[in-house]
Amino acid sequence: MMKSFTRTMLLSCASVALLASCSSTDQSALEQTKTIATTPKNIIMVVADGMGPAYTTAYRNYVDDPSTPEIETVVFDDILVGNASTYPAKVSGYVTDSAAAATALATGVKSYNGAIGVDVDKKPVTSVMHYAKEKGLRTGLAVTSQIVHATPASYIAHNESRKNYNAIAEDFFDVRVNGEFVADVMLGGGTTYFQREDRDLLAEFVDNGYQHVSAYDDLEGLPTGSNVLGLFAPVALPAVLDDERKNRLQYLTQNAIKHLENDKGFFLLVEASQVDWAGHANDIASAMAEMHDLAQTMDYLREYVANHPDTLVVLTADHSTGGLTIGANGDYRWSPEHLKGLQSSVMTIAMAMPNEEKPGEYVAAKLGLNLTEAELSTLNSLANQDDRSRFTAVKAFLDAKTNTGWTTGGHTGVDVEVFAFGAGYTSFMGQIDNTDIAKKIFSFLDEK
Amino acid sequence: MMKSFTRTMLLSCASVALLASCSSTDQSALEQTKTIATTPKNIIMVVADGMGPAYTTAYRNYVDDPSTPEIETVVFDDILVGNASTYPAKVSGYVTDSAAAATALATGVKSYNGAIGVDVDKKPVTSVMHYAKEKGLRTGLAVTSQIVHATPASYIAHNESRKNYNAIAEDFFDVRVNGEFVADVMLGGGTTYFQREDRDLLAEFVDNGYQHVSAYDDLEGLPTGSNVLGLFAPVALPAVLDDERKNRLQYLTQNAIKHLENDKGFFLLVEASQVDWAGHANDIASAMAEMHDLAQTMDYLREYVANHPDTLVVLTADHSTGGLTIGANGDYRWSPEHLKGLQSSVMTIAMAMPNEEKPGEYVAAKLGLNLTEAELSTLNSLANQDDRSRFTAVKAFLDAKTNTGWTTGGHTGVDVEVFAFGAGYTSFMGQIDNTDIAKKIFSFLDEK
Repeated sequence: MMKSFTRTMLLSCASVALLASCSSTDQSALEQTKTIATTPKNIIMVVADGMGPAYTTAYRNYVDDPSTPEIETVVFDDILVGNASTYPAKVSGYVTDSAAAATALATGVKSYNGAIGVDVDKKPVTSVMHYAKEKGLRTGLAVTSQIVHATPASYIAHNESRKNYNAIAEDFFDVRVNGEFVADVMLGGGTTYFQREDRDLLAEFVDNGYQHVSAYDDLEGLPTGSNVLGLFAPVALPAVLDDERKNRLQYLTQNAIKHLENDKGFFLLVEASQVDWAGHANDIASAMAEMHDLAQTMDYLREYVANHPDTLVVLTADHSTGGLTIGANGDYRWSPEHLKGLQSSVMTIAMAMPNEEKPGEYVAAKLGLNLTEAELSTLNSLANQDDRSRFTAVKAFLDAKTNTGWTTGGHTGVDVEVFAFGAGYTSFMGQIDNTDIAKKIFSFLDEK
Repeated sequence: MMKSFTRTMLLSCASVALLASCSSTDQSALEQTKTIATTPKNIIMVVADGMGPAYTTAYRNYVDDPSTPEIETVVFDDILVGNASTYPAKVSGYVTDSAAAATALATGVKSYNGAIGVDVDKKPVTSVMHYAKEKGLRTGLAVTSQIVHATPASYIAHNESRKNYNAIAEDFFDVRVNGEFVADVMLGGGTTYFQREDRDLLAEFVDNGYQHVSAYDDLEGLPTGSNVLGLFAPVALPAVLDDERKNRLQYLTQNAIKHLENDKGFFLLVEASQVDWAGHANDIASAMAEMHDLAQTMDYLREYVANHPDTLVVLTADHSTGGLTIGANGDYRWSPEHLKGLQSSVMTIAMAMPNEEKPGEYVAAKLGLNLTEAELSTLNSLANQDDRSRFTAVKAFLDAKTNTGWTTGGHTGVDVEVFAFGAGYTSFMGQIDNTDIAKKIFSFLDEK
């Protein structure tokens, strides 16, 4: 550690001349800056699934105080360092799915859409979490999806298809690094895949010394440094708008770190999984609420790094979802103020409508909006439609109020933003590829 | 100059400790890096009107060689340094128009949508071009719109509305800095606004020593260091797909620089104006062709800075147009190969259709595509529709072939990318606001 630090010092001294020189003809100064990188003790990789560039701008507008002349900056503005391309292996074209993107972020290898920790030939590839475990770090994940979903799965499992949730759950137990489990701490949803009739992986983990918890609050009673399998829902966690805990990702992250901290360092994967799901549903209210869950997590991590400057945090998205645009239909307007008073998710509101005597008034109250008679009448007319139609109609109502645009229920190919802070963060500056993120983390681990 | 260089050296030495230190708890190292900035002699500001983040990713895919396993990087990948927010003054909400954005980029002042070089109280504000002229630099612009269009206008004129093209043209002659014209070299379109019945501004410029040219090739005969008014079209230049010169922006930029170079330095505004127009028209073929015009210009500027390392180049967009997405409608596909063979713009193709005996075959030939009988039949059926309907139909045909998404004929509010290289480029790293770009250029000029 001391040796590599000395080398870093020498490199940084060499780079001064370049940075201060008038004769830097290209990005060589930036390239040199990238080498001024302290090897981090702890690495926290945050993936905001589906968070294309429009999501971070939209979030800044969403939390803007309309009474001030300026638009206040948000945590993302303080930590942006560049962009990453996200395309999968060429066999899958230019638009990635979450599996290929997660495999790229986790292993540094481009693969086909659907691949979980395998290359285009379906051969297993090593993830940075595997390598961190090999290097003696403690390892963990904290996500808001089921923990066998594409992003966390790609750091642990190897499967030709993201859809094989049961097999992926088995990999969580069966894949080992020098005989050890890949992840010491696993927090998220997914009891369904771990406690099954054909195999009780949950019991197997408990038999192997893991603490099992199924309620958020139970995390607090665990002794620091435990191995933990925390599964808080049968499949995914509820949408944050429906969750009892409005800062659940921050809370899970904080608890994961509590159990991971040790002298040799740790690697933690955090995923704001449901930004993507809001995008797939073209649900702008949930998109902004899930972004707020993420922003609170990043605020906590900034504070953590202030107190633990030997920690690196990298945040990126795997791709953009929904083709979200801030403004649409020729109107130079976006009105996020209509999204600030929601009492629950649009899905939950839409599901409850048929049980309400005055469905229009109910929706208005749950959206936190004062609506016109015409709007109430429109909403009332939805009550007899099926669940999906009501959900679609209420979302479209909010799209019209806010003037939000979408082009797809799937993904789009735009580059995503990269954010980084703490030890070694300069390595991620400028334009990179998603595989570069894994490659750089591997190289940091190599120095261990 | 020598004094400020010495100060820069001291700052850079101070920053070494920070960059190399393990204890950097936030972006302070990056902030310090920003101060390691050489004051540039020459400043070239490039605005790609309407170029949101999806445009640069799309362009990388568009020029990708499908026969190689990797997607080749493009010039933008080598020079990305961060993002800029684009919102106008709060009175205009969260989505800017080109006038407010150009005023912000030119003057560092947020204004209302429509404002040309005036603040929210409609008071004139000073642009970096005015200030460069005050500091004794030579100044110029090279654009593909009429030169009185919002972006170039905001660097020279002051008007409460971008629509007042004639008054703006008069400002080009009447606004002076210490008695001198604001711009020494002006290349683009717009004869209509300068050679009018009520006032012949073109003659006035010629009477004041400006060379007037109206054909691209005539630029080459002018003595180096001339003052030039080059107006190559009545209003805007043709779309690049219809232009005789497929590298017209590079050519105009190169010629502008030839006349601007001098011992005291120069400020040049370059605008790829018609990326925006392709976005407004939701015309993916023109969008990619205009991006290629820009990319060739950036390639040239990279070469220029390699030979003139005392020059700074900054590239950004004023906003994103059209809500372009790479992929749409739930299909994880984007197929830019259908855009590579166009012989002229979709507008020109659509206009010519009624004169053709076999309109379907004509369109196929002009698009450079082999089409099915069904596709040819669809195109043939358009021949009797009006111009606008044919244009819309052929664009939609290409959207379907490529799987391109759009959400608006106007602008969207997403942050735009910032690219910079050459002397002082580190000042533009990370997340900034569009006004910061002008502010930093002002501060560089202050050091003159």
